[in-house]
Amino acid sequence: MTGTQEQLIAELIGFLRIPSVSTAPEHAGDVRRCAEHVRGMLAAVGLQNATLIEAKGRHPLVYADWLGAGADKPTVLFYGHYDVQPADGEWVTPAFEPAIRNGNIYARGAADDKGQVFLQIKAVERLMRRDGRLPVNVRFLIEGEEEVGGEHIEAFVASGDPRLQADAAIVCDTEMFAPGLPTLCVGLRGIVYGEIHVRSGETDLHSGVYGGAAPNAIMAACEIVVALKDRDGRIRIPGFTDGVIPPSAAERAAWDRLPFNEAEYLEKEVKSRALTGEPGYDVFERTWARPTLEVHGIRGGFTGEGAKTVIPCEAVVKISMRLVAGQTAAVATRQLAEAVQAACPKGVEAEFRAFHAAEPSLVRTDNVFIEKSAEAMREVFGKDTVYIRSGGSIPIVGLFEEHLRIPSVMMGFGLPDDNLHAPNEKFHLANLFHGIDAMARYLELLGND
Amino acid sequence: MTGTQEQLIAELIGFLRIPSVSTAPEHAGDVRRCAEHVRGMLAAVGLQNATLIEAKGRHPLVYADWLGAGADKPTVLFYGHYDVQPADGEWVTPAFEPAIRNGNIYARGAADDKGQVFLQIKAVERLMRRDGRLPVNVRFLIEGEEEVGGEHIEAFVASGDPRLQADAAIVCDTEMFAPGLPTLCVGLRGIVYGEIHVRSGETDLHSGVYGGAAPNAIMAACEIVVALKDRDGRIRIPGFTDGVIPPSAAERAAWDRLPFNEAEYLEKEVKSRALTGEPGYDVFERTWARPTLEVHGIRGGFTGEGAKTVIPCEAVVKISMRLVAGQTAAVATRQLAEAVQAACPKGVEAEFRAFHAAEPSLVRTDNVFIEKSAEAMREVFGKDTVYIRSGGSIPIVGLFEEHLRIPSVMMGFGLPDDNLHAPNEKFHLANLFHGIDAMARYLELLGND
Repeated sequence: MTGTQEQLIAELIGFLRIPSVSTAPEHAGDVRRCAEHVRGMLAAVGLQNATLIEAKGRHPLVYADWLGAGADKPTVLFYGHYDVQPADGEWVTPAFEPAIRNGNIYARGAADDKGQVFLQIKAVERLMRRDGRLPVNVRFLIEGEEEVGGEHIEAFVASGDPRLQADAAIVCDTEMFAPGLPTLCVGLRGIVYGEIHVRSGETDLHSGVYGGAAPNAIMAACEIVVALKDRDGRIRIPGFTDGVIPPSAAERAAWDRLPFNEAEYLEKEVKSRALTGEPGYDVFERTWARPTLEVHGIRGGFTGEGAKTVIPCEAVVKISMRLVAGQTAAVATRQLAEAVQAACPKGVEAEFRAFHAAEPSLVRTDNVFIEKSAEAMREVFGKDTVYIRSGGSIPIVGLFEEHLRIPSVMMGFGLPDDNLHAPNEKFHLANLFHGIDAMARYLELLGND
Repeated sequence: MTGTQEQLIAELIGFLRIPSVSTAPEHAGDVRRCAEHVRGMLAAVGLQNATLIEAKGRHPLVYADWLGAGADKPTVLFYGHYDVQPADGEWVTPAFEPAIRNGNIYARGAADDKGQVFLQIKAVERLMRRDGRLPVNVRFLIEGEEEVGGEHIEAFVASGDPRLQADAAIVCDTEMFAPGLPTLCVGLRGIVYGEIHVRSGETDLHSGVYGGAAPNAIMAACEIVVALKDRDGRIRIPGFTDGVIPPSAAERAAWDRLPFNEAEYLEKEVKSRALTGEPGYDVFERTWARPTLEVHGIRGGFTGEGAKTVIPCEAVVKISMRLVAGQTAAVATRQLAEAVQAACPKGVEAEFRAFHAAEPSLVRTDNVFIEKSAEAMREVFGKDTVYIRSGGSIPIVGLFEEHLRIPSVMMGFGLPDDNLHAPNEKFHLANLFHGIDAMARYLELLGND
């Protein structure tokens, strides 16, 4: 390891040591300390206007910019988050005492997302030190509530603040498809998450006395769920999949070239007896380009140890739909609400209540910001960049699209086994170093017009 | 109120004051104190061999007998329980400080079952005091674990102990169909209670990343439940209802004469929007003479506040079947287990595990013990005794049938609104006094052969 690399790691360790757990009120002070730390890093590399953007009762956003490249050069908006998940579970070394093992740095937030925010800043620093200037205009917007709903940044992005003016966002919060394989994520599924509230009566009843005459809220919940999605994995909500835009032939062909072994995926990732899902679609299409409906849990009745013979009078079903290009959260929400009503059995009332939603997004690969990112990564990693989608949802990408009308370039340097949201989260150090190289090269290519 | 009645109430209050909550380890001493209290009452009225029957780690049974009526007279076995449910919830007056209001005595255990055990003892006392002897041979077997599974009495009844020799059991642990209407319960549903364990993988998965490819244990649980019972309330377990013995035309005609208003039942008891159940059967048949399948709760996944996008890898369904004459617990258990296997979707393992079971029971109304009970109650209450069934399960009745080959006469003096297992449990004092009269008269009639 070079002296420069050792210095980088030492700096990253200082960032990772701050337990900026945004979900935990007792860490509110640490979250603020971490925001100040990010602001300090941004100012130290020569960015201007480094500041905390505050909102009452919320964790601060960190903003900085450098707009000296001129009006003929593009402006990019770097996005990332400095908050982290709680450090539950059993860790080999403590979550907030970063440790190096086998070429990885282990700590909560190492990959999600401090390591990736750090590489954005360090790429800017390298160019600034070498040239005294940057090839493009840059803004940074680093949030502290990504793991807790992101309400502050959502309001800010919708506010029309002039500091949001940009031509593209660079989002470093995703992963590479495989080690050493440069990857751009060009599509995300949206989501609608909520609860189905089922009520069959005023009170729980004795199943001996009333069994056979009284409706049962949990039975009704099961009937509704099964009416929404059949045993073969087909969603039965009327009109739900009508507008879905299928992947292009070129995108499908590109997926066929990805290194993927379905048996290994089943055995090592899904860890089940069989894959399921809609007939007629392969795994990539089912998880990236088709919508889903999943039940996350059913509350109600008796679930303790032993036996209690109760006919439950209410049930709450936690449920979500993932949405793809061609669908919108508003329409899907209405369709689900209507389907729940239609499926509700006799004697029972049921209602869908949405909690939150994010729109699906899909970026064209012939966009110049995507093309130059792919080229920069190909140069650094020595392999053609692959285009993938993610089945998950990154709400900020939809918000950038909706309010700023800009595409997001999702350059991610995490790896599939980085243990995000789990014990022993790590970040591969080679990806940190290559990530800085690729990001600096990307800014150069963007400035070369 | 007469002096005798005041004296009875004072004695009953002493019994009800003992918090003999069998489910709560901290009340173990109170349960034992209550057993001693029952033994004392039995000995005080002139019964012999009053003793506690012990088993390691179990609450004691209380036994006593008087066998002086001669071998040509029948022997009856009085059954009841001295343990009570916990006193959760909001009580107008404390659960273990009995209070008299509006002709009722309010206390935990007032109707279930101390008040009814008390009236058995007091009926014997009255005859003993008047005649110095009893018209029949009697045994008492009063348990302290009815609310907690009854394992001790189950083992004792199966033991072949000579103290169990009897011609019929008199069980006072049920209720009258309506106030003032003498009622004999001649049928009980059996029960099989257990859990369906569903497993779809080794770990919970992220619904964004794997939604569309991975099986979902709670969705699978819903599919299994709906396969077992359709939306119309028909149980779809192959062969399940094949052996069910329908009620006789006479029994059906008797039910038609019961005072019953379906709209009122829906509004005041079920408190739902509509009654449900198998088409083609009326409420009495659906709740007394048809089997049921009910889900009591589903454990697994995420059910807390807010959103968590998890594909649950396991689910546990609490489920029970109520069984009727012509069915057996063993066959029904096997049928359910097989139906669960058959309904289990792709990629998922599911298994039914039974916790406990009780056989259904049905007593013929032309049995002499039933006939004389009906006659005694008709004399005391001044109305014809009605025959009903109960949709619930009283395991001891099945055990008496199975091991002792004796019928149980279910003379119950509770009322439908006595709040069993709920706050403000009560026992109607007129039923206490009439119950003693009816029980004493019943023993006289049994001795008159």
